Amino acid sequence: MDTVSSYIQSHRQAFEDDLSAMLRIASVSADSRQRAETRRAADWMVEQFKQLNLATELVETAGHPLVYAESPPVPGRPVALVYGHYDVQPPEPLDEWISPPFEPTVRSGNIYARGATDDKGQMLTHVKSAEGWIKSVGKLPIQVKFLIEGEEEVGSQHLAPFVKQNREKLACDTIVISDCGQFAPGVPAITYGLRGIAYFELRLRGPRQDLHSGTFGGAVTNPAGALVTLLSALKDKDGRIQVPGFYDDVVPLTERERDEFRALPATDAEFMQQVGVTDMWGEADFTSIERRWARPTCDINGLTSGYQGEGAKTVLPAKASAKFSFRLVPKQDPHKIGAALRKFLDERLPPGIQMELIDHHGAPGVVVPLDSPYIRAAAKAIEHGFGRAPVYIREGGSIPIVNTFTRELGADALLLGWGQNDDNTHSPNEKFSLDDYHRGTLASAHLWQELADTPPRQVLRGE
Amino acid sequence: MDTVSSYIQSHRQAFEDDLSAMLRIASVSADSRQRAETRRAADWMVEQFKQLNLATELVETAGHPLVYAESPPVPGRPVALVYGHYDVQPPEPLDEWISPPFEPTVRSGNIYARGATDDKGQMLTHVKSAEGWIKSVGKLPIQVKFLIEGEEEVGSQHLAPFVKQNREKLACDTIVISDCGQFAPGVPAITYGLRGIAYFELRLRGPRQDLHSGTFGGAVTNPAGALVTLLSALKDKDGRIQVPGFYDDVVPLTERERDEFRALPATDAEFMQQVGVTDMWGEADFTSIERRWARPTCDINGLTSGYQGEGAKTVLPAKASAKFSFRLVPKQDPHKIGAALRKFLDERLPPGIQMELIDHHGAPGVVVPLDSPYIRAAAKAIEHGFGRAPVYIREGGSIPIVNTFTRELGADALLLGWGQNDDNTHSPNEKFSLDDYHRGTLASAHLWQELADTPPRQVLRGE
Repeated sequence: MDTVSSYIQSHRQAFEDDLSAMLRIASVSADSRQRAETRRAADWMVEQFKQLNLATELVETAGHPLVYAESPPVPGRPVALVYGHYDVQPPEPLDEWISPPFEPTVRSGNIYARGATDDKGQMLTHVKSAEGWIKSVGKLPIQVKFLIEGEEEVGSQHLAPFVKQNREKLACDTIVISDCGQFAPGVPAITYGLRGIAYFELRLRGPRQDLHSGTFGGAVTNPAGALVTLLSALKDKDGRIQVPGFYDDVVPLTERERDEFRALPATDAEFMQQVGVTDMWGEADFTSIERRWARPTCDINGLTSGYQGEGAKTVLPAKASAKFSFRLVPKQDPHKIGAALRKFLDERLPPGIQMELIDHHGAPGVVVPLDSPYIRAAAKAIEHGFGRAPVYIREGGSIPIVNTFTRELGADALLLGWGQNDDNTHSPNEKFSLDDYHRGTLASAHLWQELADTPPRQVLRGE
Repeated sequence: MDTVSSYIQSHRQAFEDDLSAMLRIASVSADSRQRAETRRAADWMVEQFKQLNLATELVETAGHPLVYAESPPVPGRPVALVYGHYDVQPPEPLDEWISPPFEPTVRSGNIYARGATDDKGQMLTHVKSAEGWIKSVGKLPIQVKFLIEGEEEVGSQHLAPFVKQNREKLACDTIVISDCGQFAPGVPAITYGLRGIAYFELRLRGPRQDLHSGTFGGAVTNPAGALVTLLSALKDKDGRIQVPGFYDDVVPLTERERDEFRALPATDAEFMQQVGVTDMWGEADFTSIERRWARPTCDINGLTSGYQGEGAKTVLPAKASAKFSFRLVPKQDPHKIGAALRKFLDERLPPGIQMELIDHHGAPGVVVPLDSPYIRAAAKAIEHGFGRAPVYIREGGSIPIVNTFTRELGADALLLGWGQNDDNTHSPNEKFSLDDYHRGTLASAHLWQELADTPPRQVLRGE
């Protein structure tokens, strides 16, 4: 292990250079104009794995390609599957970036670029830890499989069929994912719960085209007016979602969880300062951490209608649309909620308005059992990498594919986040701490060793 | 009069060429990038008046310049002040124009361009009728003053001070404005009522910057959510505006007006086909014409927040804004309504949201007395130009400056609209019928003669 650690220590600059190179690629999967860049990111990953002599494949899909690579089997030892993604969120609004989103720039020990933390930087720690083992010791102590996709930010629709059709190839004892965060700077964490998602776009059409709001206003339904009425009906004044049946399958928080959350080193004042709000608000009778980690929500993600330019334009818009999404907790079914939502909106649609409801993507939430030897192995590895034991937390975001992995491969996920809450994921000025990049790489290198010391699942199960 | 009519008849092509030239100028007053084009339109108007040997001035303001011109006084005859505007609405959305907004194109007898009907085409009829008199007879039968501004579409803020400071220069017996419509094709109209306006922009800010909607959603107020909640509170389900005191000063429609409106040759089916809606909706207990002409309304003119691009982005937006406006009827005071609105919104502002309410512009509504000799003169002129007597209507749109003229100059306005309801004012594919352009010019030429046969105001008042 010392040989591996020394290699990692002495290659910090090279690892940073590789991260920068990857961050220069504008692999925005949602943007069809960036198709070539997105493929270039896949090709770049293939090159990384080939340089480690891993068996590597570029797997074509109807969308962006998958990259798969594996090290040789190590009999009697567990197999780890690393999942990550090379695609990134759109960088807009561009004018709020201090340095351009695809020109990685280091300031105060952080590297700023779209994808720095989500997920290029975090994902690369596992590639670089494999490099540490292979280039110093000659091989990894367990078999590590890498599955890196390019559609995580647009719903991973081609990954699930691939997993389903390649159960044997992907067979593993644990799934390693670094696409979330530490609890706080210096407080590493293992995430045992994720929220699910159901993301929709509502498009309303009224008159054939934009009308003069003076000449026509008052006699036809304004689509923007209909939109605000429909969207505001989704929640009551206490923040409770009004779609019938929405809360039916919600698993309540246990008292033990509520106690543990309350014990975490965090205050509402810090949170407000972090996100820059003057006050907090959310569902009645829950703490801020509970609202973010373990309660379902509905948020508007975008609104567009009519005149949005400078000054005033007296127009009655022909159309109005909104992107909005529900965050779900384990047991809530995105399909069931989508159907209930459609009915809810249909029943309230005002006269003279045509509605289109687009179901962008959905995934249920996840909770991982804590009493697993792989969780213990990961905790030890994190202690080696970060110098202290992790806390156990949940996360409000979604990694939709985790459900698929668990269902298809029978293994649970190790959600080992190296990011920070203020990394500006999905926002302008996304960043990743270079120290966390290197600590994550070291923790990952230890993880392969700790897993090598842990029996495979069939042994654990007494098979 | 025959000499004048012949001149107008034989100069149709030249008049159309001048209209095209004017429509090529992108004088979008709301768009600071079009400042030079807007000035070019003012210069073009100056040239028009100079060619008629009128005393002409370009009047600088802190915004876009005014153009003023006048023909020589004719003692013992009334003075007419023609008001119009050379600025136009923004042309967006550009991709919905069949031919580009500033490349005037004739299709089926209509000229398509931004400003064709509002107000370049209509305003030019009075310039061309003056040309008809001056170039054929040698002079106008009454004194005509022209006041053409470049800020009508952005609130006319520099016109009112000019009028106030130039009461003597602008002294007149009647104010001629062609910036509205006929009742229907072949049914010319005199508009005796206009709605007022109070136009606002509401800007909400929540977190310092856009946040990941998964990690943070549920614990902070979403500005887009706050926006839809505030906007939807403005109206109840019957379309009644909820701002306290909003209806206090509304003058109810008389039974006679309601009867006359019902007698007009119009059906709801035609209206729905015209604007391309499948159903109508508005304030309970009023007909469609009443809702458009004589009832106050509130319409959202634009919405913007968060991610509006292709696909899905899981963002909790830092800000959200809306442009929206009330249409007012006579006696409603835009300032009083603005103050009540601010209070209404303030009281409902959710925690963690900062609000900015911008008051873009306001003007009260107008009703012109019908029992005036100038209205009778205009009716005769219209019958000469269009071949049939006008109907008397109101209009839902606003010409904010009419109030200022009436207050400062003591004269009422003759609202003689040559446009059609389907001219796409403020919308893509704005148009103006070339036949109406020529009929309007002929009616205007007759108007100068009919006014010459009508006593000035001081004679009418027995002074």
